[in-house]
Amino acid sequence: MLVRHGVISTLGQLTSHSPSSSTVIRRQQFLVRTLCGSRTYLPKLTRAMSSTSEADAESVLRTVTPSLDPKRHKGQAGKIAVIGGCREYTGAPYFAAISALKIGADLSHVFCTKDAAPVIKSYSPELIVHPVLEESYTISQFSEEEKRKVQDKVIGEVDKWMERFDCLVIGPGLGRDPFLLECASKIMLLAKKFNVPFVVDGDGLFLVTNSIDLVNSYPLAVLTPNVNEYKRLVQRVLNCEVDEENAEDQLRSLAKQIGGVTILRKGKSDLISNGEIVKSVSIYGSPRRCGGQGDILSGGVAVFLSWAQQLKSDPESPSESPVILGCIAASGLLRKAASLAFTKHKRSTLTSDIIECLGESLEEICPAS
Amino acid sequence: MLVRHGVISTLGQLTSHSPSSSTVIRRQQFLVRTLCGSRTYLPKLTRAMSSTSEADAESVLRTVTPSLDPKRHKGQAGKIAVIGGCREYTGAPYFAAISALKIGADLSHVFCTKDAAPVIKSYSPELIVHPVLEESYTISQFSEEEKRKVQDKVIGEVDKWMERFDCLVIGPGLGRDPFLLECASKIMLLAKKFNVPFVVDGDGLFLVTNSIDLVNSYPLAVLTPNVNEYKRLVQRVLNCEVDEENAEDQLRSLAKQIGGVTILRKGKSDLISNGEIVKSVSIYGSPRRCGGQGDILSGGVAVFLSWAQQLKSDPESPSESPVILGCIAASGLLRKAASLAFTKHKRSTLTSDIIECLGESLEEICPAS
Repeated sequence: MLVRHGVISTLGQLTSHSPSSSTVIRRQQFLVRTLCGSRTYLPKLTRAMSSTSEADAESVLRTVTPSLDPKRHKGQAGKIAVIGGCREYTGAPYFAAISALKIGADLSHVFCTKDAAPVIKSYSPELIVHPVLEESYTISQFSEEEKRKVQDKVIGEVDKWMERFDCLVIGPGLGRDPFLLECASKIMLLAKKFNVPFVVDGDGLFLVTNSIDLVNSYPLAVLTPNVNEYKRLVQRVLNCEVDEENAEDQLRSLAKQIGGVTILRKGKSDLISNGEIVKSVSIYGSPRRCGGQGDILSGGVAVFLSWAQQLKSDPESPSESPVILGCIAASGLLRKAASLAFTKHKRSTLTSDIIECLGESLEEICPAS
Repeated sequence: MLVRHGVISTLGQLTSHSPSSSTVIRRQQFLVRTLCGSRTYLPKLTRAMSSTSEADAESVLRTVTPSLDPKRHKGQAGKIAVIGGCREYTGAPYFAAISALKIGADLSHVFCTKDAAPVIKSYSPELIVHPVLEESYTISQFSEEEKRKVQDKVIGEVDKWMERFDCLVIGPGLGRDPFLLECASKIMLLAKKFNVPFVVDGDGLFLVTNSIDLVNSYPLAVLTPNVNEYKRLVQRVLNCEVDEENAEDQLRSLAKQIGGVTILRKGKSDLISNGEIVKSVSIYGSPRRCGGQGDILSGGVAVFLSWAQQLKSDPESPSESPVILGCIAASGLLRKAASLAFTKHKRSTLTSDIIECLGESLEEICPAS
């Protein structure tokens, strides 16, 4: 069984340290740690498992974060797109998109409404902001036929970019305008067509909770609900209330019920499940609950998931799902950055302060050189 | 042969150090270093040369950067204009324009669309932003006659400024709107009429690749393609694929084929050729490939090229083409600044961080006083 997971052959190589094998060694160390820290790799135990295992988030971060190689060119460390930002909300999509860059992605796009675009652009020249989404109030005089044409145009604008993206984040600052949500649902279908992973957060979760088929059985979908969003999801899908006594089992059932999507349930400890395993991340953290931290998390999941996907072609890659690894890594990094920001800013800690700590936090865990 | 290049007479003066001759001495030192470090000054060897010589970028930076003289007035250290910035892209023209200022230009203009202008203005009050370009969607209802009038108006707005500029950067964040690209091509013709040098980057390269006559045989044109842009250029002009085995010869052929324009091919090493010589810049650098670094380079080439042009009237000036010198200097400085920013910010290094390091990097190489 261990051979099947590539662990015995991996352990056998631990003594031969060629100078160029640092990445391989990091991954070997990861597997050893994972085996020691958690036994969920053994299928027999996974099936019988009823308790959650704490993920070694730092180890996962070291495993999925790619080495920086001067031979690589722009885009190879990740191209992320955020779908969100409307007349009302502009901060959330900015936080998600800039977090992706600060963690190490090469390019970060935002697809938002025409009203939101100049504001999001003005937050940072580093983002590529597409003012292509429409809200009902701009097309209220249109006939149904004209509205359909507008929707086709919106989807066309996203379509021409889709295959370039490594991951989407759908929902930060999306709002609840019916026309906009309909466009967002079409974008989810488009992402699935191109096999592009996506993270659903904020108002995207409102959409998905009411139209669960949008993500059902798509293994590259991640939902990142907070307490209230989770409650609504449980009510809708499992037709019951949240059971804190059996939180892990309920999360596993929920993820399984949605066909094996991955759910990252945010809370005092973050719980992550794809319907098979359940992992928790409890390290670090901050007692500050300022708005916007969820946007950092969703942008982070997008980057780490993309990086973990790249490992798949590596024979030494961990057997864990890239989606689960991406969630663990993003949760661990956000917690460390929030903790660091809190030591600096205490009660006045804001989301921007946490974003400023992402680089230093990642560097502490996983030095760039 | 040495006398023809003014080198022997220069060397002869090295012993007489009058207090006011520091600039002259710096240039003399440059020539000595260049002669020692590279023999491409000797025409016989240049003709036979098949390998690339590494440029002494620091020496070039010291040579082309003018002394700061309190007697000089605003504008004499460079007036740069960036043509770019549309509804979709605003970061790129900002990066190019602000980099020019941060390196030491006195004035930096941006000519962009009406939509892009308020955003670019909001990034920095240091820039002069002209909201004069138009995109197809704003004139879609116009007749051909009206469209021609709009185009004439756009070109008129640029025309009245043109002769004041020392160099243009055409392309950062220009987008691919056909009407806008048509305006950009007219602006290139205008620049040629006024003998104003221009650097073509980003979407400007898309335009030029499809209409090579726009730059053909204009000795003051610089193209700064990245991997993909270079590939398209080679396919279009040389009708073949990129040959990495003979990268220098192919670059020289390409530049020669376009009538001796200068091409700065960005990569692990930057390669620069005007169809005669080939220089490489390999020093420093950073493994981070965040979007926007090419915009710093294009803004930098514009400034250093302008400064190198000013040397032409100096009898002690280097014989090397000012365009080549500008490329070497900008490449060297960007690499040093990227390296410095990376030591500070590691994986979270963004283009803005590199721009913040331009001044410190130039100061280290070439102290202002």
